[in-house]
Amino acid sequence: MLLSDIHTPDDLRRQPLDQLQPIAGQLRDYIIDTLATHPGHLASSLGTVELTVALHYVFNTPDDKVVWDVGHQAYAHKILTGRGERFSTIRTYGGLSGFPRRDESVYDAFGTGHSSTSISAALGMATASKLQGNTSRNHIAVIGDGALTGGEAFEALNNVGCSRANILIILNDNGISIDEAVGGLDSYLTRITSSRKYNRLKEQVWQRLDGTDGRKRHSHSIGFFQRLTSMAKTMALGSSNLFESLGIRYFGPIDGHNIDQLVDMLRRMKELDGPKLLHVVTVKGKGLRQAEENPVAYHAPGRYDIRTGDQIKSSCDGGALKYQDVFGHTITELARANKAIVGITPAMLTGCSLSIMKEAMPERVFDVGIAEQHAVTFAAGLAAQGMVPFCNIYSSFAQRAYDQIIHDVALQRLPVVLCLDRAGLVGEDGATHHGVFDLAALRPIPDLIVSAPMDDHELRNLMYTAQLPGHGPFVIRYPRGKSVFSDWQSAMHAVTIGEGRQLREGSDVAILSLGHPGNDALLAADELQRQGVSAAVYDLRFLKPLDTAMLDRVAAAGFRRIVTVEDGVRAGGFGEAVVEHFAQHHPQAAARTVILAVPDRFIAHGTVPQLKRECRINVDAILEAALQ
Amino acid sequence: MLLSDIHTPDDLRRQPLDQLQPIAGQLRDYIIDTLATHPGHLASSLGTVELTVALHYVFNTPDDKVVWDVGHQAYAHKILTGRGERFSTIRTYGGLSGFPRRDESVYDAFGTGHSSTSISAALGMATASKLQGNTSRNHIAVIGDGALTGGEAFEALNNVGCSRANILIILNDNGISIDEAVGGLDSYLTRITSSRKYNRLKEQVWQRLDGTDGRKRHSHSIGFFQRLTSMAKTMALGSSNLFESLGIRYFGPIDGHNIDQLVDMLRRMKELDGPKLLHVVTVKGKGLRQAEENPVAYHAPGRYDIRTGDQIKSSCDGGALKYQDVFGHTITELARANKAIVGITPAMLTGCSLSIMKEAMPERVFDVGIAEQHAVTFAAGLAAQGMVPFCNIYSSFAQRAYDQIIHDVALQRLPVVLCLDRAGLVGEDGATHHGVFDLAALRPIPDLIVSAPMDDHELRNLMYTAQLPGHGPFVIRYPRGKSVFSDWQSAMHAVTIGEGRQLREGSDVAILSLGHPGNDALLAADELQRQGVSAAVYDLRFLKPLDTAMLDRVAAAGFRRIVTVEDGVRAGGFGEAVVEHFAQHHPQAAARTVILAVPDRFIAHGTVPQLKRECRINVDAILEAALQ
Repeated sequence: MLLSDIHTPDDLRRQPLDQLQPIAGQLRDYIIDTLATHPGHLASSLGTVELTVALHYVFNTPDDKVVWDVGHQAYAHKILTGRGERFSTIRTYGGLSGFPRRDESVYDAFGTGHSSTSISAALGMATASKLQGNTSRNHIAVIGDGALTGGEAFEALNNVGCSRANILIILNDNGISIDEAVGGLDSYLTRITSSRKYNRLKEQVWQRLDGTDGRKRHSHSIGFFQRLTSMAKTMALGSSNLFESLGIRYFGPIDGHNIDQLVDMLRRMKELDGPKLLHVVTVKGKGLRQAEENPVAYHAPGRYDIRTGDQIKSSCDGGALKYQDVFGHTITELARANKAIVGITPAMLTGCSLSIMKEAMPERVFDVGIAEQHAVTFAAGLAAQGMVPFCNIYSSFAQRAYDQIIHDVALQRLPVVLCLDRAGLVGEDGATHHGVFDLAALRPIPDLIVSAPMDDHELRNLMYTAQLPGHGPFVIRYPRGKSVFSDWQSAMHAVTIGEGRQLREGSDVAILSLGHPGNDALLAADELQRQGVSAAVYDLRFLKPLDTAMLDRVAAAGFRRIVTVEDGVRAGGFGEAVVEHFAQHHPQAAARTVILAVPDRFIAHGTVPQLKRECRINVDAILEAALQ
Repeated sequence: MLLSDIHTPDDLRRQPLDQLQPIAGQLRDYIIDTLATHPGHLASSLGTVELTVALHYVFNTPDDKVVWDVGHQAYAHKILTGRGERFSTIRTYGGLSGFPRRDESVYDAFGTGHSSTSISAALGMATASKLQGNTSRNHIAVIGDGALTGGEAFEALNNVGCSRANILIILNDNGISIDEAVGGLDSYLTRITSSRKYNRLKEQVWQRLDGTDGRKRHSHSIGFFQRLTSMAKTMALGSSNLFESLGIRYFGPIDGHNIDQLVDMLRRMKELDGPKLLHVVTVKGKGLRQAEENPVAYHAPGRYDIRTGDQIKSSCDGGALKYQDVFGHTITELARANKAIVGITPAMLTGCSLSIMKEAMPERVFDVGIAEQHAVTFAAGLAAQGMVPFCNIYSSFAQRAYDQIIHDVALQRLPVVLCLDRAGLVGEDGATHHGVFDLAALRPIPDLIVSAPMDDHELRNLMYTAQLPGHGPFVIRYPRGKSVFSDWQSAMHAVTIGEGRQLREGSDVAILSLGHPGNDALLAADELQRQGVSAAVYDLRFLKPLDTAMLDRVAAAGFRRIVTVEDGVRAGGFGEAVVEHFAQHHPQAAARTVILAVPDRFIAHGTVPQLKRECRINVDAILEAALQ
């Protein structure tokens, strides 16, 4: 049997059981081979190959619903569900998404990207089935131990426990979020997994159940099972473990790479009504030595050698650092001088380069797990006691903490520094990950300072300014990828809050930008110069407070065209703030202003230049607007 | 000893132990007597009187930090911390806030209002103390069993468990959120509390500890204690209960109205380093028969008879229904005809009047507990399977689900109907509860329909329209309090999505409104008429899509003044959207437009008319703007 003959899960389900292991092997090889040259989320998907095969083998997808939490572990799922031939297009413009999407396949029951949503979604589906009188459909949430720390997952568990919904939660436990998993829950899972006594009890349950023959709720086995469950529940505390405390039957842990055991177990699960959880232990990066040994680096390793598995470092890696690394080095530098500074990240220690500070002063860095809400309120608590917390969250994940930013930070004017990494268009991760809502969402919040550096030097200056005393909460948002200068290690100085800077003099047109897009503004000004058009360039630097004095000067200068450019959504964003000021004070200027911003639709995946072109916020778009 | 002699917790701490019960009695009477005529959150505060006395007696506040989750149970705390004489000003304009506020008292260690933040905040403070070398300060989070279902609380527990922070969590377990508490967690707490075996074990621990004499970690008692704890932990599963699973020492349950036991227990807790949880069982409404019997109605009962305790129903209660009741009756009516409709609320079953539908068709209504994130994704899961979920969330609490609205609902264009109750200024609950950010926060989200009814008939029409097939997610936001018409039960008809309506013809000025403030616009137009000014009134009805054709007609009509009025923040809101359209297409109209909206600062508490006056969004402000 060849993987290439499997076009749908039906094809898979026609195979004898003993073919599944070879198919899983081919799947794994195909993923490793493809991602070597088409970068993607490698290690997570390698960990779920056998689980994916077993799920589609046992369950009747797409009628049975599988929701992949986060979704970056679903590559094997994509290949098995008719997308194998297009697999090499993954994460490219017009190609397959790196995450499940309902509009991509009927097998993608629910779109994901952000963490900890799967149980809620599956419970919704299970509830719908129940209300519709469908008692046979299965609803499965596959969630990692990292994602389980996200508060929404717990909210869902609390509801699953008191529902009678037909839902199966697969806990894919690999001890890793993207960095090492953290927290009491993870230690607990490790204890369960290694608890001999508990496993012996579980084994007895399964041996007894083994005596039953097949379909639906055999009365003898269930009676026995319930007795055992109840016995377990009353031991010590009236409940045998955390999940059963919440009313969810717990099974496992089992080896997530043993396909026979997986199939066997899933078949049993299918026979049980009501909410249940199967604890599956997997190895992130399974099957590629380097990925198993270093799952953090191989979470999304970029290109690697197809034969050796070694990562290929780009030879032209010189020049500017990534913004995230400038952040990581700079906070470490600032923290050496200012003992009040601490660093907080919700599970993105490496991704935001707070790992640099962690290395230097581990006791002052807190990876709180996938827990954006907690991260922000925790930071507020630290600030309330005189610390200067830098809380670094990816822009799109910070949407999770919107209420905490308003209610715990801004309302109390606590000097939390919120660094939003991955702001703007992020490229290949696509719609769920673009950090395009932050500017518009944060601008309405009173007492918040909202800034965006145009380059590494500006990032350092804003960080330096943010840790000085005397102001309220301070947001610094910056993009994924490279910053601008190769001599990033500039001397830092304080920036006047709310003050923009004029980058270039000019007389015909004015280009107003916020943050990194200012670099495109400068390139556009160069090209305009070549075409004989004199362009002034202004980097407003602060969305809030907005430098209205600068806007007044721009309005008074009589440019024939004013172009604003930003890498966030148009509605409520930077350009609109500028136009609103003009409209009320300089109507002529308002009429001459063109806003370039991310349009009012969700933007899919592709390279950043491709997406900027699509959104009309690149150099060409600035030129066109200026010359209109 | 009289309560009136206690001006600070120091005064309290000078009392002998046997005076605490009488003081608690006086406190309770004072709260009951005051709130009879000065309405507030009664039942929650009655439940925590003894706990509050015991906390301030045992701990060295304000150096020791107490964070009151949600905060509406903190009235006794306010009285004991120097605010007794001003207590009758609670929730009034310029008076005491109904919630803890850092700017109101040094004893209010952290401001609250929304649920489930206390553990994160206390952990932040405890971490700060540790980093600052203060090992003696205590950090206490007082959290209800309802608030514990909020995901952020779990995120925090997961972090507390692996910290060494000196934090005490008081679980105030009364089995009630505002409605009955729901979910697996609550059943679990009930099981613990009633588990004889478990309590016997705990008793043994305490009896043994009792043999030790006072201060700090007596080696014998700790050795014994650790042995017992460890024994408990390894029983069955390597952990004796849910909290200990997460690495948090669990104590209790104890009677939260036995002040001697509370003091005794808190003194012991104080001697233990590291994270620990004390489970305290309280009766919501304790001490007032009606409140004990009906804690839902007496959560915030309004005025009641000071002698009998019976609620005083306003005699002029005729006329229009509350918006929430129109919602409750209308969804029930719609659900009878459309079997796909279900109702979802995160713990506001009575508050949003979904209780009406629950009564009629209990199996189609889901109170998911304090869990806004889950509520929205759960709704998305239901919608993905063909149901039409109406998810009702208070506007300011919906901030908690901002990411889920973007990521799970809008991005997938799932036809969830999101009803945001308590939108606009809510009055006495103040800054944490005003629903003023929703319009600006939701406008940037693609594919979302955002609407606001001006009256009960419009609410019904929008709800009717929202449940029809063929469109994406649909937001309907409406205020707290009375709607407009006494004949609310109008025949429903579909509204064209994105179409505003002209309410009144006029030639001099135009007033553009969104939702309920349109009623003020009409009153202003009446007054303008009297003053000889002809005012046209337009109810845009949809913020998104905005009726730009109507705006074009308004611009073309040549009004000498255009006034927009809304009950949300100005930045990114309705007025700005109007001006932005004008600026780009009708600059003359933009220059003549005045935006009336909630200004860029947090608005405290008071009556809605007081706050509207303060924000300059009332009838007077419209008149002034129109006549400018």
